[in-house]
Amino acid sequence: MATLGLVEYADATPEVRAVYDDIMAVRKTDWINNFWKALAHDPKTLRRTWESIKEIMGPGELDPLTKELIYLAVSTTNQCGYCIASHTAGARKAGMTDGMFAELMAVVGMANETNRLVSGYQVEIDQRFLAK
Amino acid sequence: MATLGLVEYADATPEVRAVYDDIMAVRKTDWINNFWKALAHDPKTLRRTWESIKEIMGPGELDPLTKELIYLAVSTTNQCGYCIASHTAGARKAGMTDGMFAELMAVVGMANETNRLVSGYQVEIDQRFLAK
Amino acid sequence: MATLGLVEYADATPEVRAVYDDIMAVRKTDWINNFWKALAHDPKTLRRTWESIKEIMGPGELDPLTKELIYLAVSTTNQCGYCIASHTAGARKAGMTDGMFAELMAVVGMANETNRLVSGYQVEIDQRFLAK
Amino acid sequence: MATLGLVEYADATPEVRAVYDDIMAVRKTDWINNFWKALAHDPKTLRRTWESIKEIMGPGELDPLTKELIYLAVSTTNQCGYCIASHTAGARKAGMTDGMFAELMAVVGMANETNRLVSGYQVEIDQRFLAK
Amino acid sequence: MATLGLVEYADATPEVRAVYDDIMAVRKTDWINNFWKALAHDPKTLRRTWESIKEIMGPGELDPLTKELIYLAVSTTNQCGYCIASHTAGARKAGMTDGMFAELMAVVGMANETNRLVSGYQVEIDQRFLAK
Amino acid sequence: MATLGLVEYADATPEVRAVYDDIMAVRKTDWINNFWKALAHDPKTLRRTWESIKEIMGPGELDPLTKELIYLAVSTTNQCGYCIASHTAGARKAGMTDGMFAELMAVVGMANETNRLVSGYQVEIDQRFLAK
Repeated sequence: MATLGLVEYADATPEVRAVYDDIMAVRKTDWINNFWKALAHDPKTLRRTWESIKEIMGPGELDPLTKELIYLAVSTTNQCGYCIASHTAGARKAGMTDGMFAELMAVVGMANETNRLVSGYQVEIDQRFLAK
Repeated sequence: MATLGLVEYADATPEVRAVYDDIMAVRKTDWINNFWKALAHDPKTLRRTWESIKEIMGPGELDPLTKELIYLAVSTTNQCGYCIASHTAGARKAGMTDGMFAELMAVVGMANETNRLVSGYQVEIDQRFLAK
Repeated sequence: MATLGLVEYADATPEVRAVYDDIMAVRKTDWINNFWKALAHDPKTLRRTWESIKEIMGPGELDPLTKELIYLAVSTTNQCGYCIASHTAGARKAGMTDGMFAELMAVVGMANETNRLVSGYQVEIDQRFLAK
Repeated sequence: MATLGLVEYADATPEVRAVYDDIMAVRKTDWINNFWKALAHDPKTLRRTWESIKEIMGPGELDPLTKELIYLAVSTTNQCGYCIASHTAGARKAGMTDGMFAELMAVVGMANETNRLVSGYQVEIDQRFLAK
Repeated sequence: MATLGLVEYADATPEVRAVYDDIMAVRKTDWINNFWKALAHDPKTLRRTWESIKEIMGPGELDPLTKELIYLAVSTTNQCGYCIASHTAGARKAGMTDGMFAELMAVVGMANETNRLVSGYQVEIDQRFLAK
Repeated sequence: MATLGLVEYADATPEVRAVYDDIMAVRKTDWINNFWKALAHDPKTLRRTWESIKEIMGPGELDPLTKELIYLAVSTTNQCGYCIASHTAGARKAGMTDGMFAELMAVVGMANETNRLVSGYQVEIDQRFLAK
């Protein structure tokens, strides 16, 4: 179980409920997942994290699906079980097909491989790649 | 410098040149970056890595730009300097704007943060997220 | 279960028992946790690891609670489930409150985020930060 | 150089200058380090990151020095060169002595070692460590 | 369960069966482990990954046991539970004794420790270590 | 430069010199590399780290070359520049050929790839791999 337990809506303070309500409204769902219920023990971090995610994952130059794929790529690289499960669900909801998932995994795997080949071979950055 | 040095085209064996030629043809460029020149000391790994990347980064359900963004997200999470420099260039070539880069970084940063919040709070996977 | 199983006190050699006894004496407890019972299959590593931890976590310029918080910060960054669980318990015993835990997590999360922003933006070290 | 270059105060928009001014006021300094100048290309991330850090690193149950030590512990575990340099400076400013730095490093090193021993030996979490 | 489920031999396409058959033939076993059954949802990645592993883990200047030990060292450093379990089994099959396992873990733990001491102390590469 | 600078033999205390002397004797060299000179600011960590490494890297069931290859595999996975440079030199001295280096890198790269494929696909550990 989560270190400090989970804060259910019924037991939440008005401050926490306000965040839960906003999460459900923005995500068009009637459900709060465990991550938020665990963070709710620290209302400041709950609020700050949600406000940050809302801003970051909202409309922009990258579409919502691309952002979810990137989130899943990072979570997979870090091997965070919970994050992989929740963002696989999030990416599905945003339109990820089985084929996209398979291609995402292939890119993530290959990037993790070549990152180490580069380091192990001590490859120097090409002059052309240096930011000017 | 790279551990075993860099293999320039002029000094390369026919086997290595064939890979270099294919890289330049597929990427529509007349230039080979240091990563390949370092790997060329191991022709088998050079060939296998290139064939894998060609297959993975080629046309599919995800467009080339999305794949480059994912590659850059992984490289940033792993903090691989060379890979960040080379795939920033690669993503630019595939169409990444300054705004897309900024949004990519914001998502990568946030994912790295919440991955640790989840772990530190020992959050259990929600029943709904469990793959069936 | 642990790869080589767990060595219980009753089944331990005198060499292993001596380490177990010292752990219980130093920690003022009558209990040995699984980490040590797993390591006990390699008495040299058991002894060396315990002697090192005893020296490192003992009295110094940093107080025991601060050291436990640092241990938990590292374990959370590495996402080591066992280590997070055991060092959360250790930090509690050393005086960590719920509020301290929440602040620790907030700092760990933010540091993991900005570490990647720095890398992804390829930020150069300021002249003032260079060790002289 | 940073991917998008550095935004100097003289060239900054009013929005960016407002963040720079607040950073200098809160930190009681007349200087902005490269991290913020690089982020300034994305004013939203600049503002959000600064507001988050200001909230997280401000007064609380953990004192400022402890928070800086934790930030440095994470940055060292992630091996982020820039972050290690900047937070070593930050911790110094908050009161870290040479002796504290040495003890911090010793704990960080040991935690990174035992995190892997735990994983490699596949040690199961003790019943007593499970959060209730 | 695996994200896309597991593809059993009886339900596999001829393309997937061909890979399964080759895995069993090369490994002299009548059994396919879950990793391959999960990857089978993406026949291209299944084939490419298997062909790569067959080439990499096959006969060379390093003997099969050494290669398995290296695989386990990486998996332990990354704290990948599945990979640690499967490659511990693989290393056993290749001849790893309990004593070798213990020494491997000791080296992996120490390397993870000194990697961070080096980074945290910001140690510069000795002139003698620079590849020429 | 290293955070606290480097302690040269001429400036070292008798306690530090004793460790330097032992390093040179055990390694049959007349030279101390920067890692030890940086650690020397903390004589306790200097001594403990050296004694640990001497014990771990010494004669055992795994030969010295295999241990150096494992050290290099971990350092490459962690992308520690200094450690890769110093342990590439160490492995060379212990007998690593160019061909062995190339095979080592191939295994390290592949392990880093499959570690993420396993995590991303959420593959469950096979019953047969569970330690009894």
